[in-house]
Amino acid sequence: MQARNPDYHQAVAALFERGFIADLGVTFIDCGPGWCTTRLALLPRHFQHTGVVHAGVLSTIADHSAGGAAMTLLDVGDVPVTVEFKIHLLRAARGAHLECRGEVIKPGARFLVTESTIEAIDGASRVTVAKLIGTMAPVAAH
Amino acid sequence: MQARNPDYHQAVAALFERGFIADLGVTFIDCGPGWCTTRLALLPRHFQHTGVVHAGVLSTIADHSAGGAAMTLLDVGDVPVTVEFKIHLLRAARGAHLECRGEVIKPGARFLVTESTIEAIDGASRVTVAKLIGTMAPVAAH
Amino acid sequence: MQARNPDYHQAVAALFERGFIADLGVTFIDCGPGWCTTRLALLPRHFQHTGVVHAGVLSTIADHSAGGAAMTLLDVGDVPVTVEFKIHLLRAARGAHLECRGEVIKPGARFLVTESTIEAIDGASRVTVAKLIGTMAPVAAH
Amino acid sequence: MQARNPDYHQAVAALFERGFIADLGVTFIDCGPGWCTTRLALLPRHFQHTGVVHAGVLSTIADHSAGGAAMTLLDVGDVPVTVEFKIHLLRAARGAHLECRGEVIKPGARFLVTESTIEAIDGASRVTVAKLIGTMAPVAAH
Repeated sequence: MQARNPDYHQAVAALFERGFIADLGVTFIDCGPGWCTTRLALLPRHFQHTGVVHAGVLSTIADHSAGGAAMTLLDVGDVPVTVEFKIHLLRAARGAHLECRGEVIKPGARFLVTESTIEAIDGASRVTVAKLIGTMAPVAAH
Repeated sequence: MQARNPDYHQAVAALFERGFIADLGVTFIDCGPGWCTTRLALLPRHFQHTGVVHAGVLSTIADHSAGGAAMTLLDVGDVPVTVEFKIHLLRAARGAHLECRGEVIKPGARFLVTESTIEAIDGASRVTVAKLIGTMAPVAAH
Repeated sequence: MQARNPDYHQAVAALFERGFIADLGVTFIDCGPGWCTTRLALLPRHFQHTGVVHAGVLSTIADHSAGGAAMTLLDVGDVPVTVEFKIHLLRAARGAHLECRGEVIKPGARFLVTESTIEAIDGASRVTVAKLIGTMAPVAAH
Repeated sequence: MQARNPDYHQAVAALFERGFIADLGVTFIDCGPGWCTTRLALLPRHFQHTGVVHAGVLSTIADHSAGGAAMTLLDVGDVPVTVEFKIHLLRAARGAHLECRGEVIKPGARFLVTESTIEAIDGASRVTVAKLIGTMAPVAAH
């Protein structure tokens, strides 16, 4: 896969600087053509009262990381919009932080198919807790 | 559909009182056997910088409302856990608040199939912005 | 919803006349703007050895009926292609025949969101056995 | 992952010997704990009139191969039932035959999460045409 926007790295980083994703605390780590990695230091507000990270938190980081991966392949001036996604909650998510990797598994001019995998990390323990597969469409940014 | 827990209304309301769902600002409206309605007054932090509600916010209210609907049918002492869901983002979500209705479309002892529909409301305008279909499993609460 | 192809009824009917859908035995019943109904008389080859209709048969009729519903809204010369779908197998499918109704829940120039519901019919018994939700994209027919 | 049924290989092979999957022409290749591979020699009846393999054929082989992968991990006397799946049609499927690999990505006593990937093969060309992710539940065979 090849980037068409020479400044894609900066464009992806900018996706994490404002709005709900920043309010939640998700931070951008890195990206390359077709992939994007992110991180969330877990805080009490991210959990359910049962002590497990809420599915909505997992959906948010997985969706946005998939969007970041899609963004690496878009034309200058386009941004990815989520058409739909499916997420499997594989194991109870606990720990100090989450790491997520989004990937494009099928690029395209009209839509891109993306996957994200989330790991929950606690000391030396690293557990895959969720997997997303979804469709992103490029639209002109305003 | 019939509730087996005589105090199901209180049990569902309690699902919205703590943790991420309360931190986000989602409030419980009402429930009956197989359904649950909720509401979110939209705040600046719920949006992307493009002015559209983040897909993660929509996923959170849709998933939790589906869980509330499932909870109405569970045995005393059980809570619903999300196995997986798919969400379609049908239209850009803007406005003053969201309303969500979760419904059980197939009850079951091992898992329940649920749907949620989210409407964005702005004055007299009411637009369906997202639809979720997912699988919930009952587990013993701790 | 409004049809743009004045001959949409004939165009949808033609989708069921050849290829795998005809080989399987699925027949077109009727359609209108945004919906399409179909039928399959169940034969021994449609079943698993357990006596239940195979998930692949259900997927085929649900997907093609959703495509038929999408077709009613396309421009002359376009056909719908399935981008992705999710199907829930709600109950064991048995009986003399299946009926399926596909519907467009969100039209669009780039993609359409569709749902299909399958009922299994045996004498006076009519049971909802599966539900699909998926994304269709219009492409120019060759 | 570990098999609990010492005769799992034979049990999986038997899943492909009767019913719709055999009628379609899908054949079992091999399996091990948590995976199963299959093959379909493409015939005219598997195609749409556009010359592309029907989504229903792809869904059938992907679902059944995922079921085969799940079967490798079940107790003696249990069979897997599909709860739900999502399939992405990534590229137009053409060629002489399909190969499919199903894998369990999360085992479990109540349900298993599975993935399948389908490749279309034509001479030296091998193209990934579809990907499924779904939920299987063990039930007692009759």
